[in-house]
Amino acid sequence: CAMAEAPPVKRKREDEDGDGNGGAAAAPFPLAELRLRRVLRESARDKAVFLHGEVTGPSGEGTDALVILEKTPFQEEKLLDLLKKHTKLELRMHNDIYKTYHLYPPPELSEIKTTVVYPATEKHLQKYLRQEVHLICETWEDYKNITLPYIQSQSFSIQWVYNILEKKAEADRIIHENPDPCDGFVLVPDFKWNQNQLDDLYLIALVHRREVKSLRDLTAEHLPLLRNILREGKEAIMKRFGVPGSQLRIYLHYHPSYYHLHVHFTALGYDAPGISVERAHLLTDVIDNLVLDSMYYQKRALTFALQADKELFKRFQEVRQFPGTF
Amino acid sequence: CAMAEAPPVKRKREDEDGDGNGGAAAAPFPLAELRLRRVLRESARDKAVFLHGEVTGPSGEGTDALVILEKTPFQEEKLLDLLKKHTKLELRMHNDIYKTYHLYPPPELSEIKTTVVYPATEKHLQKYLRQEVHLICETWEDYKNITLPYIQSQSFSIQWVYNILEKKAEADRIIHENPDPCDGFVLVPDFKWNQNQLDDLYLIALVHRREVKSLRDLTAEHLPLLRNILREGKEAIMKRFGVPGSQLRIYLHYHPSYYHLHVHFTALGYDAPGISVERAHLLTDVIDNLVLDSMYYQKRALTFALQADKELFKRFQEVRQFPGTF
Repeated sequence: CAMAEAPPVKRKREDEDGDGNGGAAAAPFPLAELRLRRVLRESARDKAVFLHGEVTGPSGEGTDALVILEKTPFQEEKLLDLLKKHTKLELRMHNDIYKTYHLYPPPELSEIKTTVVYPATEKHLQKYLRQEVHLICETWEDYKNITLPYIQSQSFSIQWVYNILEKKAEADRIIHENPDPCDGFVLVPDFKWNQNQLDDLYLIALVHRREVKSLRDLTAEHLPLLRNILREGKEAIMKRFGVPGSQLRIYLHYHPSYYHLHVHFTALGYDAPGISVERAHLLTDVIDNLVLDSMYYQKRALTFALQADKELFKRFQEVRQFPGTF
Repeated sequence: CAMAEAPPVKRKREDEDGDGNGGAAAAPFPLAELRLRRVLRESARDKAVFLHGEVTGPSGEGTDALVILEKTPFQEEKLLDLLKKHTKLELRMHNDIYKTYHLYPPPELSEIKTTVVYPATEKHLQKYLRQEVHLICETWEDYKNITLPYIQSQSFSIQWVYNILEKKAEADRIIHENPDPCDGFVLVPDFKWNQNQLDDLYLIALVHRREVKSLRDLTAEHLPLLRNILREGKEAIMKRFGVPGSQLRIYLHYHPSYYHLHVHFTALGYDAPGISVERAHLLTDVIDNLVLDSMYYQKRALTFALQADKELFKRFQEVRQFPGTF
């Protein structure tokens, strides 16, 4: 689903500089000096826009930046202010009992979430460029022969995950931890969630063990880990945020955006990106399938959507005739 | 899916006053004097909020108003201004090359679309009131003891389905038919699709046999039927609309909205209602599961979302303790 690629940046760092905080990244970002090169994508529904910008350095050289602007959800405690402290109210339409206006709020009531990746690589930019999408039905043979060699050839950096697991970054954001190196995990708010309202609650459980890339690697051996995530994750979210387990959608992505096993927790009422049937797998279903058959995910074909410009799509295309993938 | 009910107001006027412009509707709406009674619903994804307000008249009597606030999509021609003319830029997070900020724009760059229905009837307000939704994990025992008796007690009318199958209605809309009484089906455009654009392509396959209520009834016996729907449905859509099978999402709902087996075909790029993991089941997955185990759907727990005011929810609630459904 195209929406699965929605804001903000999923952090696969192709441009690792080793210290996790160094280089150009440490300098303040000169937003007002940004030159706008192109709009990569817009989402009218999400009220988000993805920009390719360029910053010119002192010696005249340009450095790419990815800038994502996203309007933020309304906060309940600020609604009254919004109604009363607007700077202007313009009538746009009037028909019978129905009227529409444009309301212009003061700056402090209308922040825009701004995500900057700087310096950005071509991959960061490509990720947000809108593309044609096809379903791929990946058998276990396909996984071994096409997908796994692709994953291994990419050497995606997931240093940012290790930074969290090792408390080198975001340690203050941890909601819950089970420290067991084999069956433990860390639960953190996802970057898409600002924690101001429960409506779009979104947390991620990152497992401590490092060799499990995705759903495809799971067997009955991982049931204790998966059950810990399910039970402790629900308990921790109930305790901290008061949201009961029956109002949480708990799932894995296949394919995930990074190949270190993680589980998504979103509010059931939240139409989050990436919850559609061709990408999401409910954790309870995954557990049931592994109980039914330890090798379930080494037998079953898995269907997912791929953009036509992705390297993995091209590798499938070499082996098969398109269209007619699915 | 609740999101299907998103803004703007669908205008079924329950409060017709004849001239289309009379009564309280003609008076300017005193937004700043509005008393906020309650938040009916919020949508974090759409950045919208639905409010029940009250305006107090000169003689002290209150009149209900429905107020919808919705942030607007970014306008391309204003992006540069937004980057350069912000009143403040606050760093919120920094990890490696990734930073997030809150950007505070000047009022003229951050209008909020405001829809007012005034005076509003109880029906206007009810329409936007959020119903609490819970996940139910339905085992096969639950199905037999709770769900099946409920379905049988409801005597839902599906005469409209039979009308289509017998060509008593919509015969001119049929895109494809396999007339076999056991393994055949009829493919028709869904009512949500106006057929004007392929963007939101939506068709439904209705099976000829009448005793299959849902996914729960399927066994390996139905594989020929399901494979016919998959193959012939894709072929017919390619032939008529030019959309290849790899760009179709083909799935069943559990629970369906009516208990006569049917399969949904939607454009892969279309974020259609009802495609989320807690409701949709890909037809290819259903086929694979039945090949793996003919009794798969008579063994596996199935998870779905239910509004708390629904009869079926109440029947589950009588048997279980809530919260803790899931």
